[in-house]
Amino acid sequence: MSTNKSTIPFSRDTLEQVLKRRFFFAPSFEIYGGVSGLYDFGPPGCALQANVVDTWRKHFILEEDMLEVDCTMLTPHEVFKTSGHVDKFADWMCKDLKTGEIFRADHLVEEVLEARLKGDKAARGEATKEVEEDEDKKKRKKKVKEIKNIKLPDEEVAEYENVLAQIDGFSGPQLGELIKKYNIVNPGTGGPLEPPIEFNLMFDTAIGPSGQMKGYLRPETAQGQFLNFSKLLDFNNEKMPFASASIGKSFRNEISPRAGLLRVREFLMAEIEHFVDPEDKSHPRFDEVKDVKLSFLPKDVQVAGSNKLVETTIGEAVKSGMVDNETLGYFIARIYSFLIKIGVDSTRLRFRQHMANEMAHYAADCWDAELQTSHGWIECVGCADRSAYDLSVHSARTNEKLVVRQQLPEPVTVEKFEVEIQKKKFGPKFRKNAGTVEKWLLERTQCELEDLAKELKDTGKISFKIASIPDETIELDTEFINIEKVTKVEHVREFTPNVIEPSFGIGRIIYSVFEHSFWSRPEDKDRSVLSLPPLVAPTKVLLVPLSSHNDLQPIVKKLSAKLRKEQIPFKVDDSSASIGKRYARNDELGTPFGITIDFDSVKDESVTLRERDSTKQVRGSFEDIVAAVREITYNGVSWSNGTAKLTPFDSQSGDA
Amino acid sequence: MSTNKSTIPFSRDTLEQVLKRRFFFAPSFEIYGGVSGLYDFGPPGCALQANVVDTWRKHFILEEDMLEVDCTMLTPHEVFKTSGHVDKFADWMCKDLKTGEIFRADHLVEEVLEARLKGDKAARGEATKEVEEDEDKKKRKKKVKEIKNIKLPDEEVAEYENVLAQIDGFSGPQLGELIKKYNIVNPGTGGPLEPPIEFNLMFDTAIGPSGQMKGYLRPETAQGQFLNFSKLLDFNNEKMPFASASIGKSFRNEISPRAGLLRVREFLMAEIEHFVDPEDKSHPRFDEVKDVKLSFLPKDVQVAGSNKLVETTIGEAVKSGMVDNETLGYFIARIYSFLIKIGVDSTRLRFRQHMANEMAHYAADCWDAELQTSHGWIECVGCADRSAYDLSVHSARTNEKLVVRQQLPEPVTVEKFEVEIQKKKFGPKFRKNAGTVEKWLLERTQCELEDLAKELKDTGKISFKIASIPDETIELDTEFINIEKVTKVEHVREFTPNVIEPSFGIGRIIYSVFEHSFWSRPEDKDRSVLSLPPLVAPTKVLLVPLSSHNDLQPIVKKLSAKLRKEQIPFKVDDSSASIGKRYARNDELGTPFGITIDFDSVKDESVTLRERDSTKQVRGSFEDIVAAVREITYNGVSWSNGTAKLTPFDSQSGDA
Repeated sequence: MSTNKSTIPFSRDTLEQVLKRRFFFAPSFEIYGGVSGLYDFGPPGCALQANVVDTWRKHFILEEDMLEVDCTMLTPHEVFKTSGHVDKFADWMCKDLKTGEIFRADHLVEEVLEARLKGDKAARGEATKEVEEDEDKKKRKKKVKEIKNIKLPDEEVAEYENVLAQIDGFSGPQLGELIKKYNIVNPGTGGPLEPPIEFNLMFDTAIGPSGQMKGYLRPETAQGQFLNFSKLLDFNNEKMPFASASIGKSFRNEISPRAGLLRVREFLMAEIEHFVDPEDKSHPRFDEVKDVKLSFLPKDVQVAGSNKLVETTIGEAVKSGMVDNETLGYFIARIYSFLIKIGVDSTRLRFRQHMANEMAHYAADCWDAELQTSHGWIECVGCADRSAYDLSVHSARTNEKLVVRQQLPEPVTVEKFEVEIQKKKFGPKFRKNAGTVEKWLLERTQCELEDLAKELKDTGKISFKIASIPDETIELDTEFINIEKVTKVEHVREFTPNVIEPSFGIGRIIYSVFEHSFWSRPEDKDRSVLSLPPLVAPTKVLLVPLSSHNDLQPIVKKLSAKLRKEQIPFKVDDSSASIGKRYARNDELGTPFGITIDFDSVKDESVTLRERDSTKQVRGSFEDIVAAVREITYNGVSWSNGTAKLTPFDSQSGDA
Repeated sequence: MSTNKSTIPFSRDTLEQVLKRRFFFAPSFEIYGGVSGLYDFGPPGCALQANVVDTWRKHFILEEDMLEVDCTMLTPHEVFKTSGHVDKFADWMCKDLKTGEIFRADHLVEEVLEARLKGDKAARGEATKEVEEDEDKKKRKKKVKEIKNIKLPDEEVAEYENVLAQIDGFSGPQLGELIKKYNIVNPGTGGPLEPPIEFNLMFDTAIGPSGQMKGYLRPETAQGQFLNFSKLLDFNNEKMPFASASIGKSFRNEISPRAGLLRVREFLMAEIEHFVDPEDKSHPRFDEVKDVKLSFLPKDVQVAGSNKLVETTIGEAVKSGMVDNETLGYFIARIYSFLIKIGVDSTRLRFRQHMANEMAHYAADCWDAELQTSHGWIECVGCADRSAYDLSVHSARTNEKLVVRQQLPEPVTVEKFEVEIQKKKFGPKFRKNAGTVEKWLLERTQCELEDLAKELKDTGKISFKIASIPDETIELDTEFINIEKVTKVEHVREFTPNVIEPSFGIGRIIYSVFEHSFWSRPEDKDRSVLSLPPLVAPTKVLLVPLSSHNDLQPIVKKLSAKLRKEQIPFKVDDSSASIGKRYARNDELGTPFGITIDFDSVKDESVTLRERDSTKQVRGSFEDIVAAVREITYNGVSWSNGTAKLTPFDSQSGDA
């Protein structure tokens, strides 16, 4: 069931009307005026979402024997303080003190400069190169009232274009400077704006009746998986590598959400945390995927200012070093096959590598699966190698070891610096700080110990400062401490695993699938079709009695019972609308199959099966038709193979 | 697979150890010290939960063609203000200003009085009638330090007992009086307590960057369904009755959560809102369930101070008027069959009716499915007839009609009072209040209009006050207004549907199923078994190669591939532990089937199938064994029928 089969150009407005009319989703609390960034899924959207999640669970969790966990969304402050979210999970915003309006700083700069460039082009009499598909930006730009046909100096045009190319990379203060430099004001009123300030995107609340325990709604599901690492490793009988997975809602308090399902404040995520030996990131099943051909947009191409895709196999991509390691590559290929399975158009899917300045300092490599929509290329799945960062920070904060201990095949002899402390003398000397000083010493790295050992040997003492005892320089001589290189035989290797994290935004994926599967019948642009794959379509079968004649009712009942027993989701439409109208309604709902019950059905229990995209029909017995539906829907059989034994049928009633 | 098959008494401690050891669930953020009332589900708990939800979806949504929706958890203040949650969704708490401790007032009174009664019994030399199963209360009472063997006056004993019998019915001020009257203090320190104050159980947060829009995390999923009523009715082609349903997390900021999964701050709910004509609450499928026999605890029995169950069919219960109507009765029966299907012990399930003082004023009738556990009888499913309350209040607040309009079979002539307003004169007279006065008049009921019409006729004018214009008495004469009885022909009937609401607490149900299915093998109390029904068991099959010999590996691989293709969740245990140990581990995980691969399997691809509860074994081919597993697990076939064609097998390795 391919898309883009229509000669009628895609219209986002038409799609949005269909999605609203069929209640795939709608703004939450609409009768109260709505809240931006919050959406409810109606029955077909909800069923589609459940089917996508079910497919995800089978494709990843069951297929790979992952350990699924369900962790709470409410999270105490301390956890996100450690993970870095309290300090860094923020966007920059500018306030207009007069109107109370709030703007996201990077979006504001982008919109204003783009509007000025457009005005410049118009003034120069050049045709604007409007990217046909980016209707969203068009709408946004309309809001910028200051679009005036003013010609800009050539240098300024070049400057603006340079800024726009790097717009994702600016810090808040840098954005503030740009706003000042280019005299950017409230586009609606022309009024002045305050300098950008940071706005943390986590929703906060208080846990418990005292109001003392600050908590957040998680902005991702990952932390719950990291915190349960030791329990999961134990559950897995200490075997490595292994993956955990989690499907659940996350929350981000976006500054000014727009673009429908693409930027929302509450959303469904599916995340995998694959824990792997940092010294061996090979994957046992990599061979199964190595020939999968993908479209890559690597970082060096982007840095060179280009968008040209590299088409190659994932095997080659790993071999050449473009993709960091086999495990990362394996997941990239599996992400691809999942997306195709649920209806993504492969020609509108690319894997974009993060550039150095986008990536967290600890990450080894990161690729986003981006889907092309009328809003541009949208990041729908992230796939990052997060190294040992998360486990390390939580371990350091809680003093709980989050490590793997592996019996070495043979004992190894190692030389290492060790620190020996005269505990009894620490108490009298440091009193309440004794524990802190001891802990500081025991947490030094081998390099640091080497330096300290040298200092101790050379000067007979060491001196240092500890952040939590700011007013004191600590001095220790050999009466208190000894640091020496010792030789040890080790039987066990202890290491903190690295984490490969594929992270899926289900709502964004679903929206992209809507765009990729939506088209209108060439013979009638008002007849829209949502060509969802049968596997994820909300309803698989529409049962249509040809008329409301009583004779047909027993057959409808019997066939309903059979479909219910086979657990094939179906709907009956016995309304008085014409057959064509009833099918048209269900084409919009993405229902892949229609079964028509007519007066011949009463005689011999034969029925007609209609395929949504081609409107082809075949005829056969109840049993054979239901078997064909099952094979095509759940076992990936094609329409022509699935219906090969059935009789082609020329509609007796037409489809119009 | 029946429970209670062991002669070894149930021990909650043993169950809790098993659930923890096998990571069914664990306190969230445990390495950070945990947060009370928050739990994470580990892999088996998560799979069990997913299977319970999947069964629920099929049992209710698919079977009854309900409209599933997925609404946001974040909810603006106004919605819960209207629903009554902002004002009434609260518990009463007492603070100890010295220690900062906070007590839930009703629990405190209950614990202290119970402790005193116990001390009294001891002083009188009477044996305390300890309810064997209520270990939780025992633990709580231990915390009450003031248990002293002091004999109380007989009247005081009677008073305490009377208070305890009504403990769920006291208001906050009443609890405050009891605390004063009985001199109840902080049981730990003896220090004084502040009078009870209300604590709202909703978590609050701010939506958007301005911090101006107050929001809450929903404490139930229902409101989202009510707010979407008109869209759902439209989606259902205006047909009535119909039901919506929702599965998702809800949040309650409990004052002092305890009792594990039974009282938590974040929990999974599954709720149905069945919209029905208030004048016809019959149910078309009631006949299918009318003979289901249930245990009822009706309100009059409770009011009479008894716990004696009434055993009767749901058909009789509705006929006698004990259960208000057929639709409510239908859902009670369907709740019963769902609970049995997922492993609830029918002898420990009762339906308790709410007494008049427990029920909201608008509710017509309400029954809770209660499950008996070591914590006592626990409310796990509520089933209430909420009348037209919710739709009415949201409609009144938003001025959006939330009604059904039905074409009458024949036009009817009605007499009704109507108010006629001289709009043009309202503006000059009332200025900015004109709209408010007009709205007030148009919203009067027929009874109110009748009174006003009389006043107007008798005195030539009407006068009234409006809450939102407090300082003014409004007077209107016939120049401004006319109120008269008119005769009208109506073709359409307009009504606000009533709502029947079955509401499931999934975590509580799962915990009760744990207790109902847990037992220890009589021959060895350390060998525990979770007799979960195969349908919901986390893993269906354990694959056990008899030894780690290389010859067995290809068979393990082949069988794994087959099970994966059939989508039967399974695990391989090829560890070096003995067969018996490996099975014991999986008995604790509730895995219903074991397949042993031995050296005969290499020769003829035959394998042995073991049943968890009986440890019976049969032998057959791959195909036949997998077919048997599928039939028993998913099609409700019994072990003896499912394995009738297979060969009984005497263990060659024993189960020990």
